[in-house]
Amino acid sequence: MKVKVSRKAHFNAAHRLYRKDWDEEKNKAVFGRCNNPNYHGHNYELVVSVYGEIDEETGFVMDMKVLKNLIKVEIEDILDHKNLNIEIPEFAELNPTAENIAVYIWRKLRLHIDMKKDLEVVLYETPRNYVTFCG
Amino acid sequence: MKVKVSRKAHFNAAHRLYRKDWDEEKNKAVFGRCNNPNYHGHNYELVVSVYGEIDEETGFVMDMKVLKNLIKVEIEDILDHKNLNIEIPEFAELNPTAENIAVYIWRKLRLHIDMKKDLEVVLYETPRNYVTFCG
Amino acid sequence: MKVKVSRKAHFNAAHRLYRKDWDEEKNKAVFGRCNNPNYHGHNYELVVSVYGEIDEETGFVMDMKVLKNLIKVEIEDILDHKNLNIEIPEFAELNPTAENIAVYIWRKLRLHIDMKKDLEVVLYETPRNYVTFCG
Amino acid sequence: MKVKVSRKAHFNAAHRLYRKDWDEEKNKAVFGRCNNPNYHGHNYELVVSVYGEIDEETGFVMDMKVLKNLIKVEIEDILDHKNLNIEIPEFAELNPTAENIAVYIWRKLRLHIDMKKDLEVVLYETPRNYVTFCG
Amino acid sequence: MKVKVSRKAHFNAAHRLYRKDWDEEKNKAVFGRCNNPNYHGHNYELVVSVYGEIDEETGFVMDMKVLKNLIKVEIEDILDHKNLNIEIPEFAELNPTAENIAVYIWRKLRLHIDMKKDLEVVLYETPRNYVTFCG
Amino acid sequence: MKVKVSRKAHFNAAHRLYRKDWDEEKNKAVFGRCNNPNYHGHNYELVVSVYGEIDEETGFVMDMKVLKNLIKVEIEDILDHKNLNIEIPEFAELNPTAENIAVYIWRKLRLHIDMKKDLEVVLYETPRNYVTFCG
Repeated sequence: MKVKVSRKAHFNAAHRLYRKDWDEEKNKAVFGRCNNPNYHGHNYELVVSVYGEIDEETGFVMDMKVLKNLIKVEIEDILDHKNLNIEIPEFAELNPTAENIAVYIWRKLRLHIDMKKDLEVVLYETPRNYVTFCG
Repeated sequence: MKVKVSRKAHFNAAHRLYRKDWDEEKNKAVFGRCNNPNYHGHNYELVVSVYGEIDEETGFVMDMKVLKNLIKVEIEDILDHKNLNIEIPEFAELNPTAENIAVYIWRKLRLHIDMKKDLEVVLYETPRNYVTFCG
Repeated sequence: MKVKVSRKAHFNAAHRLYRKDWDEEKNKAVFGRCNNPNYHGHNYELVVSVYGEIDEETGFVMDMKVLKNLIKVEIEDILDHKNLNIEIPEFAELNPTAENIAVYIWRKLRLHIDMKKDLEVVLYETPRNYVTFCG
Repeated sequence: MKVKVSRKAHFNAAHRLYRKDWDEEKNKAVFGRCNNPNYHGHNYELVVSVYGEIDEETGFVMDMKVLKNLIKVEIEDILDHKNLNIEIPEFAELNPTAENIAVYIWRKLRLHIDMKKDLEVVLYETPRNYVTFCG
Repeated sequence: MKVKVSRKAHFNAAHRLYRKDWDEEKNKAVFGRCNNPNYHGHNYELVVSVYGEIDEETGFVMDMKVLKNLIKVEIEDILDHKNLNIEIPEFAELNPTAENIAVYIWRKLRLHIDMKKDLEVVLYETPRNYVTFCG
Repeated sequence: MKVKVSRKAHFNAAHRLYRKDWDEEKNKAVFGRCNNPNYHGHNYELVVSVYGEIDEETGFVMDMKVLKNLIKVEIEDILDHKNLNIEIPEFAELNPTAENIAVYIWRKLRLHIDMKKDLEVVLYETPRNYVTFCG
């Protein structure tokens, strides 16, 4: 009996989209307002889902208190109120698009979740734009 | 031409998480605040989805009036304003976790929906915790 | 320059509506399904607002970190995952309707907020039913 | 590295459900209040998702500015503030159920999106009724 | 002890904005896309609030079951799935703007609510446009 | 017949909270994570409300197309995807708290709205924190 359990979390961060190896003109043409060198920011809403067998004893796929704490320690405490380009080493060279941030979050959480279970990350950059990564 | 149609519903209920065959200490350690012997409760939000061919005559996968009524009779009228542990026989022995409630709802609805169609149940225990079961 | 600052919080609880001095029939007639002797429950969403002058130095009406913590200590830690009728002394005799819970919350918070500032409490019992109390 | 990117949009429209080849009685029996000959209407909320490889240079699966504009030109500008039965030729004979509108939107967008990428359309007819089409 | 109790409801309807005594050009200039002679429509979300003393016996300002039913009988049953211009006599001559619909709803409900209590109507025409009327 | 009409809008921006005349230690103690010198950011949701008489001819308090455009030109085009501290002169010395941003928005819009009408600004910094300013 496989069920997907989902937990919402959130963090606020600043970022900009750009590539060091492109000139200013190309950066502006491709990334538009998101290229602002002074940064802009978002309230990122995050949904982490774990898919696996229900444990017969507890009735849990995964203890939501454990999942909530894992998201806090691995994601929220690291990304919240940060400048992604400057303060998160993984985005020193990699563009912090919603797609790349979702993959980064998925990889960090994957290390801590039982490999018999599938992992899905949904990341809302705004209430109207979001991305989904399942590995 | 297969489409998934989804209908939201809701019910309010009390529950607690515990196992009769565990002592109080273990129940508390595993289920935390959800183990409160005096119960606590939730506004459960439910999304029921049916996936199948569009009927060429009506343009419907399933008449939403029929689905709405089915959810009312089979789920809302049974679970709303109830104590799940005490009043729902299926949870006399089975822990009413969100996972187990979703499976219970899926099984009850499955009996009434054309077997050519797939069924999915999403159950929100809180706006931040939810589960998905597809059979 | 007076501004109203608002902070959302939430707690889950069980309750029932009834009066000891009414017989069962009258309790049922007046309180309907909410009278269930086995309790039912809700995800209560709470919005606490404080109205006052912006402090010229900080730019705050009230530090939201302080307000968030006050709501946690005075309300969430007390009411979350509780049975309101059994475990909250104020509701031993008083019916825990949304109206009465809102007044209870307002009174508890009023003691800790500068009397030069106005206080408002909005309490959602369900996404479709809510109450507002301003003292 | 495949990611799904999603963009929300919306339009308001009038419609009615009926079949010219059925008599009034059968139309009413099957379509109920949705059969009102004077029309009724909805705020349709639309989520368009594109699933494909992240472009290594940009970090995008698809530029959201391009997707946003595509939805505007192909869908919103055509359907917003319209009567679907009268003004949209595709629904002259075809019943504008949520299912059929979702398929119509999917087909229009499919022409403009790289065939290496998958396309999904979710259409909310009301906050409680919605449909999903993936081709 | 005065509290405001609020209840959400909804209905779907078609309408258009225009004045018979204006020519087509002026109607278009003032009402834009909302002037479409074939109508368009909305999911109207409605919040009805009643402000008054808490009844000491029940703990209610007003029984929400009564308010819910009143909104159903007086508003939802009349307006849902209707064409406001054609089927609601009050809008035969009066433009069914959100403002005018809110006043219409307030007046209909005012007749049925204790005059010692204040009444407020909030009407969402879309998730981004809404109006409030308090008499 | 006075009605309040409300329009939602949004913008994304980076900011930090600090005072130049305080040392680093005091800035950190008062503003916590919001003091991060590398900035963080938010999706600001904005609700602008105008309260006044319904115009008998149009049925409008204020044409929502005009209000929507005013918010776009005066607020969204200026603040969206910006660093508030660096790029908005009003916040060169003034702390861009939600309170101060709401007052700034109110003052900018007040110049363009008929003085017979009242103006209210609600600004969500996150889905859980927001402020209201009415002048």
